[in-house]
Amino acid sequence: MIVWRDGDFLDAAAASAPLDDRGLTLGDGVFETMRIAAGRPRRFAAHAARLAAGVARLGLGSSPALDPGGVLEMLVELARRNGVAEAAARLTVTRGSGPRGLAPPAAARPRVFATIAPAPPRNPTLTLAEVTVRRAPGSVAATCKTLSYVDNVAALIEAQERDGDEALVLDAGGAVSGAAAANVFWIAGKRLFTPALGGAVTPGTTRAALAAAEPAEEGTFGLEDLTAADAVFATNALIGVAPVRALITRDGARVAFDTNHPRLARLAEAERAAD
Amino acid sequence: MIVWRDGDFLDAAAASAPLDDRGLTLGDGVFETMRIAAGRPRRFAAHAARLAAGVARLGLGSSPALDPGGVLEMLVELARRNGVAEAAARLTVTRGSGPRGLAPPAAARPRVFATIAPAPPRNPTLTLAEVTVRRAPGSVAATCKTLSYVDNVAALIEAQERDGDEALVLDAGGAVSGAAAANVFWIAGKRLFTPALGGAVTPGTTRAALAAAEPAEEGTFGLEDLTAADAVFATNALIGVAPVRALITRDGARVAFDTNHPRLARLAEAERAAD
Repeated sequence: MIVWRDGDFLDAAAASAPLDDRGLTLGDGVFETMRIAAGRPRRFAAHAARLAAGVARLGLGSSPALDPGGVLEMLVELARRNGVAEAAARLTVTRGSGPRGLAPPAAARPRVFATIAPAPPRNPTLTLAEVTVRRAPGSVAATCKTLSYVDNVAALIEAQERDGDEALVLDAGGAVSGAAAANVFWIAGKRLFTPALGGAVTPGTTRAALAAAEPAEEGTFGLEDLTAADAVFATNALIGVAPVRALITRDGARVAFDTNHPRLARLAEAERAAD
Repeated sequence: MIVWRDGDFLDAAAASAPLDDRGLTLGDGVFETMRIAAGRPRRFAAHAARLAAGVARLGLGSSPALDPGGVLEMLVELARRNGVAEAAARLTVTRGSGPRGLAPPAAARPRVFATIAPAPPRNPTLTLAEVTVRRAPGSVAATCKTLSYVDNVAALIEAQERDGDEALVLDAGGAVSGAAAANVFWIAGKRLFTPALGGAVTPGTTRAALAAAEPAEEGTFGLEDLTAADAVFATNALIGVAPVRALITRDGARVAFDTNHPRLARLAEAERAAD
């Protein structure tokens, strides 16, 4: 596999980061995962904008390697060099090297790298399991795609241990946040719902693309709002719209949803069509 | 500088981690920072126990490199090879390499490395600044020393921008959690207080050593409990007991504390004496 790091295409086996990289020592950085289709990243502008927002929020500083035009060209070339037209691409930005401690060095220079992996299937059908891991409104890690992803890893592990494919994560106040690596929507009667941004909700690019196609009602919702739904789905840049067949709640109940709801197919189609 | 990685002492310039290390990509791992005094890590048993608890919580798996006896010997040798008797040592454990995505590979093997840095001064006097970053009770990152430290980095940056040396972080419910990289205690009249574990509070080794010497009353406290205190201090393995001269609240008020409170000196002495 060929990867890209700070300007160079390298064999993956030859590419590494020093042990003082703050991405490694402190989860101090951000990333994007994009779906490559027909050799090009989908919704690149949305991914580039979210990455730039994360870089600004953390104050990671500037790097010529972060110029969106250059990144787009690089990703296309990276897919080409790896001989793939359909793939998952990941772009990672760390604060770069620094001495011991949390304080960023004045001279920190971001480290940027990109990798390619097989694309998972689109529109998989998922079982969600409610987990004990919580997100904090006000946590940077809960609202930006930072490298500090351990709560999402722990949520997924907990969900898998309870026979789920993905987690249903609540925030510290008990409101529905989303899945470990996806936003969550639900359909109740003629209405479409999703948790509002601003709390502990990831500003998903697929979430935004759907909002442009068919806006959901956004707000603060409890688990009982979701369990009362007719149909539920999860979204991210790789899976698109993924129907949820059931939610396993913490008390072990299995709440089933309609995976053949006609609106699900229409939303999946809208997502495929959305740039 | 000499570092240690998975069994070998290496020059730092030659030591790196692959770009697919889950510590780097997902903050998926744990670490310990220890004070080296007279060439040996202080309170090593407490650090080793907390590390083991974090490894177990995340399910990082086992590694011969994590045997406590071997780690202790390695840290002593690492200090010796770096020619330092007083230092800060950091031990980092990641879940090791993995493919794209959150799910840990079945064959994951932890990666372990240790580094040495100059020790900061003991017992510095600090100004805390209350920050907007929040921790979630129920977040793994808020209660284990994981590599997902970006919220602590963001908290420290925010504190420094508001003329603090360290942050005062609240949890999502508004209760006092601690500093970005330290526990917080306060003295009110004849009473000593600190936030209880179980919420979003780091189980500090220095916190535990003080509890053995002079137990604090533990509970859930609001900012008004801390601002009403006579004296405040922060603790971690490097700074020991650090008196707080003032807290800058979010509305800009500067609440001053007594840094010459007689009990502070006694607690600092107890911390120095505690194994």
